[in-house]
Amino acid sequence: MATAVTAPTAEAAVTEFWDGLVVGASLATLDGDAGYGAIEDGALGWRDGRIAFVGRRRDLPGDPERLADLVVEADGGWITPGLVDCHTHLVFAGDRAGEFEQRLQGASYEEIARSGGGIVSTVRATREAGEDALLAQSLPRARALLADGATTLEIKSGYGLDLDGERKMLRVARRIGQSLGVDVRTTFLGAHALPPEYTGRADDYIAQACNWLATLHAEGLVDAVDAFAERIGFTIAQTRRVFEVARALGLPVKLHADQLSDGDGAALVAGFGGLSADHVEHTSPEGVRAMARAGTVAVLLPGAFHVLRETTLPPLAEFRAQGVPMAVATDCNPGTSPLLSLRQAMQLACTHFRLTPEEALRGATVNAARALGLDDRGALRTGLRADFVHWNIARPAELCYWLGGPLARAVYAGGHRLS
Amino acid sequence: MATAVTAPTAEAAVTEFWDGLVVGASLATLDGDAGYGAIEDGALGWRDGRIAFVGRRRDLPGDPERLADLVVEADGGWITPGLVDCHTHLVFAGDRAGEFEQRLQGASYEEIARSGGGIVSTVRATREAGEDALLAQSLPRARALLADGATTLEIKSGYGLDLDGERKMLRVARRIGQSLGVDVRTTFLGAHALPPEYTGRADDYIAQACNWLATLHAEGLVDAVDAFAERIGFTIAQTRRVFEVARALGLPVKLHADQLSDGDGAALVAGFGGLSADHVEHTSPEGVRAMARAGTVAVLLPGAFHVLRETTLPPLAEFRAQGVPMAVATDCNPGTSPLLSLRQAMQLACTHFRLTPEEALRGATVNAARALGLDDRGALRTGLRADFVHWNIARPAELCYWLGGPLARAVYAGGHRLS
Ligand SMILES: [Zn+2]
Ligand SMILES: [Zn+2]
Repeated sequence: MATAVTAPTAEAAVTEFWDGLVVGASLATLDGDAGYGAIEDGALGWRDGRIAFVGRRRDLPGDPERLADLVVEADGGWITPGLVDCHTHLVFAGDRAGEFEQRLQGASYEEIARSGGGIVSTVRATREAGEDALLAQSLPRARALLADGATTLEIKSGYGLDLDGERKMLRVARRIGQSLGVDVRTTFLGAHALPPEYTGRADDYIAQACNWLATLHAEGLVDAVDAFAERIGFTIAQTRRVFEVARALGLPVKLHADQLSDGDGAALVAGFGGLSADHVEHTSPEGVRAMARAGTVAVLLPGAFHVLRETTLPPLAEFRAQGVPMAVATDCNPGTSPLLSLRQAMQLACTHFRLTPEEALRGATVNAARALGLDDRGALRTGLRADFVHWNIARPAELCYWLGGPLARAVYAGGHRLS
Repeated sequence: MATAVTAPTAEAAVTEFWDGLVVGASLATLDGDAGYGAIEDGALGWRDGRIAFVGRRRDLPGDPERLADLVVEADGGWITPGLVDCHTHLVFAGDRAGEFEQRLQGASYEEIARSGGGIVSTVRATREAGEDALLAQSLPRARALLADGATTLEIKSGYGLDLDGERKMLRVARRIGQSLGVDVRTTFLGAHALPPEYTGRADDYIAQACNWLATLHAEGLVDAVDAFAERIGFTIAQTRRVFEVARALGLPVKLHADQLSDGDGAALVAGFGGLSADHVEHTSPEGVRAMARAGTVAVLLPGAFHVLRETTLPPLAEFRAQGVPMAVATDCNPGTSPLLSLRQAMQLACTHFRLTPEEALRGATVNAARALGLDDRGALRTGLRADFVHWNIARPAELCYWLGGPLARAVYAGGHRLS
C-alpha cells in the first residue's frame, strides 16, 4: 500500500503513535472539581503539543516502546500540570535590593522616596534600558520561574508609563516567550502609577494611557488590560475609563483590587466581566458576591503579603462559600514581591492564608489558567496542551511544604522539555 | 639549581603559585567586625584548600595566568564566604507533608498525633530505615542546601532515640560529608524527645541517653551535644545531666532554648560555656546577659517561626546591645521547618525578624561558624578554608531579597568546586 511519505500509515500509527510518553510516575491530573485527580503508576502521552493519553500505565493501548517516539521511565515522583503564573511584573530594569536593605536599616518610606527609591526608580531604570538590555535582565527571572515548574507566564507592562516604555516592556515580554519556548500572556498596565511628569494631572495621564493601549493593541502586543485601583493608585472612575477602552477593543480586563483598603475594585472589575481581581485582601462581601456572579477569579498574591508583613487576610471563607475560584501567583516585582518561584508563592499561600495544598496547586494551575482566560491548560486531560512537570516528590502536598530546594525533575511545555 | 621534583622551585612558585584563582567578581569578605568588607573587581586565590590571596585584582602579584593552575574570569557577580548551616535535622526518613496537609485541612495537633503523626512518625520511619536507605533519603536535602551556597553543615541526631538509631543517624551524617565533599559537624541530640517506650520515665531515658552519648563519642561520631529544653521537652535538671556528661567527655554543648516559653535554657547553656542557644524567642534579659558573658551565639531559626506562625520575636535589640553574635540557620526538619535553603532562612530572618541583610549574611557565615566552634571559615581571609560562593547578584542584599530562584553560579568547598 503506497502512501505519501509525510502521511502516517496504519503501521506508523502503531509504531509512532505519540511524540512522547512518560510512564511510572503518579499523576495529579486536577481533572474534575475536587481532589488531586490522582492516578498511581500513571502514563502520559502527547502528540503535536497536546495531551493524547492520561491514565494508568496498565491501561495503555499496547507496549510503550511501540506507542511513542520517546518513552521516559519516570521511576516514581509525581507529574502535575505545568504551573501557570497568572500575575507577574517580571520585566523591569534594576532591582530594589538596595531599598530593601535601607528599609531594614531603619529608613522610612519617605526617606527612601527622597533618595530616589520606590517604583519611580524602577520606572527610571526601565525607561533608560535598551530593549535588548531589558530582555537580558528579565530573562533570568523568567528562567527561574520555569525551572521551578511554570510553563505559562503572564507579564504586565507598567514601568514604562509612556508609549515607548510600555511598548518596550510588552515587546520584551513577547520575546521572552519566544526565546524560552513558553506561552507568555501580555497585560497592558499603563494605569500602574502616575509618572512624575503627570503629577497633579492623573486624568490627563489616563487619557494618554488609553491612547497608548489602542496603539499597542494594534501592534499585537496586548492580550489583556489591568489597572491599579487604590488610594495610592487610580480612582474607580479612572479605572473605568481604561476598562471601557479595553471593552471597545475587545480585550479582557483584570484589576489590582482592594490590596490596601476596600476600594470597590472587585465589584468594578466583576461588573466588566473581568478575568480576575488580584490581591483582594480588603474585598467586601458585596465584592465577593459580584465576583461570584461574574465568574471573576480571585488571584491571591501571598508574596506581597509576606514582604509587606500585612495582617488582613483575603476573605477566603467567602470566596469558598460563594464558589469564587482562587488562583495563586508570584506577583514577581522588584518592590513588594521579589519572588522567583511560583512554588514558593504556594508555600506562602498555605502558611499565611491557610490554603490547603490542593487549593494552592489548583490555584497555580487550573484556576490560574482561568484567570488568564485559557481553557486549554491547567489540568492533565486529553486534548489540553502538553504542559506538565515531573517532580521529585512522594505526594503533591510536598510542593507547598518545602521552602527552597530544586524539586522539579523535568518541565515540559507543549510537549517540549524545557529543563 | 637542582631541587627535588616534589619541592616547589622558585620558577614553579611563579608559574604555579596557587591551585586556583577567581578574578573579576566583587568580594564580600566579612573580614572585620562590621560591614560587608566589600572589595570591587576582586581576586581570590587558594592553595591546598586554604585561601592564599584576597584583594583587588590590580593588587595581584603578577599576571593571573602565571599565578594559578586554574584561573576563572568571574565576569561580575559577588563572592561571599561559603554559607554555614549551623542547625539542621536533615537526616530523617519519611516526610511530614501529609501531616502538613492534614493541619491545613483543619485537623488538630491531637488528631494528628492520634493518627500517628508528629515527631513519633519520624522516629518510627527513621528507626525502620536501613542506613543506606536513610542516606539515600537524606542526601538530596544536603545537596539542595549546598546548591544554594552552604559549604558546612551541622547535622543532629534525635530521631533514633535508641542507641542503634542515634548511631545510624550520626553515621549517615558523616557519610553525607564524605560523599559530598563538605565538612559535616555532628551533634548528638538524644535528648530531643521522649520515645514512646519511656513514657513516664524521662529520667531513666536521660540516663540511657547519657550512656549512648559516651558510646557514640568513643566511636568518633559526636562533635557536639544538644538537647531540647522546653515544657514539651526535657527539664533543666535533665538537660544539665546531659551537659555534665558532655563536659566530662570534653564535648561542647548547645541547646534548643526558650522556643515556646522562657525556660531559663539560655542561661543554662551559657553557664556551661555553650557554643549556642538556638531558637531563643522567649529568652529573658538575664539569659541574654549570660550568653554575652559566655560568648554563646544566638542561633535564630526563622523557618520554624514562619511555619508555626509564631509572633514573639527573639530579643534582637538585647542581643545587639549586649554584643551577642547572631547566627541564622535552616533548622531543616520535617515537622516545623522544611527548609532546603539557608538563603531562604536569611530571607525569612529579614522579613520576620527585621535583621539587616548584613546581619543575616554574617549570621549564615562568620557567626554560624562561631556557633560551631570553628574559627577557620566564615570569612574571606588568607589562611581560612577556601569555602566560597560566586553569586549572580549585583549587591549582597539580593541574597536576602529574592525568594526562590537559583542565585549561586559556583560553590567551592576547600577549593574544590561542588556545583
Ligand atoms: Zn501586581
Ligand atoms: Zn532544631
